[in-house]
Amino acid sequence: MNMVDIICKKRDKEKLSLDEIQYFITNYTNGTIPDYQAAALAMAILLNGMDKEEVGQLTMAMSQSGETLNLSEHADFSVDKHSTGGVGDKTTLIVQPIVAACGVAVAKMSGRGLGYSGGTIDKLESIPGIRIDLSREEFLNQLQRIGTVISGQSKHLAPADGKLYALRDVTGTVPSQALIASSIMSKKLAISTNAILLDVKVGKGAFMKTVKDAMSLAELMVSIGRYNGRIMRAELSDMNQPLGYMVGNSLEVKEALSMLKCEPTAPDLYEHCISSSAQLLQMASKVKTIEDGLLMAKEALTSGRAFEKLKEMIGAQGGDVSYLDDPEKFPKAPFIETFAAQESGYIAEIDAQEVGETSVELGGGRHQKTDSIDHRVGIVVHHKVGDEIHAGDPLFTIHAHDEGTLADARQRLYAAHVIIPDPAKVLAQFFGIVE
Amino acid sequence: MNMVDIICKKRDKEKLSLDEIQYFITNYTNGTIPDYQAAALAMAILLNGMDKEEVGQLTMAMSQSGETLNLSEHADFSVDKHSTGGVGDKTTLIVQPIVAACGVAVAKMSGRGLGYSGGTIDKLESIPGIRIDLSREEFLNQLQRIGTVISGQSKHLAPADGKLYALRDVTGTVPSQALIASSIMSKKLAISTNAILLDVKVGKGAFMKTVKDAMSLAELMVSIGRYNGRIMRAELSDMNQPLGYMVGNSLEVKEALSMLKCEPTAPDLYEHCISSSAQLLQMASKVKTIEDGLLMAKEALTSGRAFEKLKEMIGAQGGDVSYLDDPEKFPKAPFIETFAAQESGYIAEIDAQEVGETSVELGGGRHQKTDSIDHRVGIVVHHKVGDEIHAGDPLFTIHAHDEGTLADARQRLYAAHVIIPDPAKVLAQFFGIVE
Repeated sequence: MNMVDIICKKRDKEKLSLDEIQYFITNYTNGTIPDYQAAALAMAILLNGMDKEEVGQLTMAMSQSGETLNLSEHADFSVDKHSTGGVGDKTTLIVQPIVAACGVAVAKMSGRGLGYSGGTIDKLESIPGIRIDLSREEFLNQLQRIGTVISGQSKHLAPADGKLYALRDVTGTVPSQALIASSIMSKKLAISTNAILLDVKVGKGAFMKTVKDAMSLAELMVSIGRYNGRIMRAELSDMNQPLGYMVGNSLEVKEALSMLKCEPTAPDLYEHCISSSAQLLQMASKVKTIEDGLLMAKEALTSGRAFEKLKEMIGAQGGDVSYLDDPEKFPKAPFIETFAAQESGYIAEIDAQEVGETSVELGGGRHQKTDSIDHRVGIVVHHKVGDEIHAGDPLFTIHAHDEGTLADARQRLYAAHVIIPDPAKVLAQFFGIVE
Repeated sequence: MNMVDIICKKRDKEKLSLDEIQYFITNYTNGTIPDYQAAALAMAILLNGMDKEEVGQLTMAMSQSGETLNLSEHADFSVDKHSTGGVGDKTTLIVQPIVAACGVAVAKMSGRGLGYSGGTIDKLESIPGIRIDLSREEFLNQLQRIGTVISGQSKHLAPADGKLYALRDVTGTVPSQALIASSIMSKKLAISTNAILLDVKVGKGAFMKTVKDAMSLAELMVSIGRYNGRIMRAELSDMNQPLGYMVGNSLEVKEALSMLKCEPTAPDLYEHCISSSAQLLQMASKVKTIEDGLLMAKEALTSGRAFEKLKEMIGAQGGDVSYLDDPEKFPKAPFIETFAAQESGYIAEIDAQEVGETSVELGGGRHQKTDSIDHRVGIVVHHKVGDEIHAGDPLFTIHAHDEGTLADARQRLYAAHVIIPDPAKVLAQFFGIVE
């Protein structure tokens, strides 16, 4: 077998065999195949596509390119949940403890934010003392002991993905559904969770701008997971406006804590978290119907068991749980200012990407992987699309570390809000489920 | 400007600007742009294409990527002729002296054979003493002094082509018309010849198997040359059967000498050479019509001036011209055997690629660039397609260095000849002219 023949096949729109795909991944990972051949193949895959079987095989090969994590001796049945990334998406902080509190093991490796899209690991690091660099043994032991664990992505799992992603980033080969789907799923499949729920975001603040693209990515990832023996489901959810009210690292932790403590919560965030929890409970066969799942999830919340489970997990990972009991302890940004609506009417749009980018500019996100972030800064939007407001009502609050960034953010956030005189429709929360 | 944006434009089927093309070629040649980015761009160009303006600009940038050779002080008007490569194609050895004998300067850099396609430089090296590694000064001085010169391709001209071709070879990006055309033409355009005649081969023994593909390549190369200010013409010529009767290095030199000495010549070779010469004479404004060009070319032959011009060129480059006067001096292969037709009928096919590959197996060509070749070996076919033959007539003669390769060649050459009972059509010599 040789790499030029493999490139030529894909160039000529032929289907690659399992052997060819494995040959490529094995030899690219070990350095035998040079970057320039991998780049030519990546471009051919991007332009000529791969069918579902090829993508399933590519993902399998990538997921097995390094260490794998076998959970079967540490949990009878375990689940994972993955979001394709959005603005204000703190659902993992809520769904993971709800589901774990219902007795379903949740083993999660999560990423950091990049660009305007936040990352759960960054948010968790708002909590003093927390460790997200768990060893293999720590990860497995915690899963077995308390049924829930979250860690940063291990570099030893699916190393082919890390190498290929870095190459795609500098060769214009990022936006390929086959390569995006296999990249996401290879990291998931390197861990032997039994069921995976994917949250594919759609809209202005998401990588997938249209329902059509998101649906096709979701279908592809579900098919990859199923090809590799997993129970799969994907939900398509709205990312035109930020999810919930808060954007920024410690702000989002606080908003998650609010919901877990049954305090007033943004309706979209509440619906999203309860619904995702119900999906996972059904996938894990804890309930027969989604309705039963919704009830069980709500009960985990109202009983306080979900909040206790989060505390247990954070505590197990070294985090100072007194911050969870008393969120006022989180350090505050030096400049916090609320800005009022300048006109009356209905909110027709809160541009999620613009809000996300503004949060990055405030210091809450990264332009480069090596940038450090300020966990205190961020944005609170006081409304959701569809709300009626009056001139003078609070529109948004900015948490900034200096006056310059605050002034810039103010301008961008006014522009991100579109207020119209006539009633505006509330945005749908979900655009469908792929199963 | 950055290379990822350039790759993304071509990936998205957009047209690249002159600046972007020059940026790529300049920085790829100097090593700033890595191979993996060039490979991704090459695949995107192969799959999404380039328009004629882009290819013209790409070729210009490549042709100017290193040294260039300005002939204007050494010849008032100079021409070049380039063949895309075939089996038995010794036309340069004939056309160049004919045209030069008619007073038109011919400045040619030529390649070596690779695969089943022969190279003029290899053929010339059959002649003891000849130097094809002329310095810049030697090349220019000889052009000025005797109006004709031939040399191996200088590595200092169009270095971007050498680098890009090597990359294409290992990334499955060879068969792109844009990249093939720019590769060929960049080397031509690095030398300031005024007019270029392209001989684009079509058929079984050519890289282009169909008239359609050959026509489109020819049109593209003509457009590139014209974009860069050259007088251009391309002829599409048959390469289904070998050109002339002889295939192999010294054998082809002998066949060329035969024609220059007005000895009996294969009709296709004669027609091809006279016709190409007439085209060049017309392109150089030596004659008004092709008919006048044909007459002038024939007169250069029959007067012996073309043969004298070849001797002058070979002598100027250190070659032993006594071999030209007495071709019997060329060393002969140790095993020479003629094989007879095994049946009577008409020759319907002499597979050019098969004959070419058999010549390589005899030792007359290379599998790898570093292989050495045996100038003595080769094949004489005694007929052309359309000829009537009788069982027992000589069909082909093999010149081999050992009995093993001779036996293998015998089998392949019988199979390469298709003899049918009914009259077979003579193959067309040309499929059209692009101008």
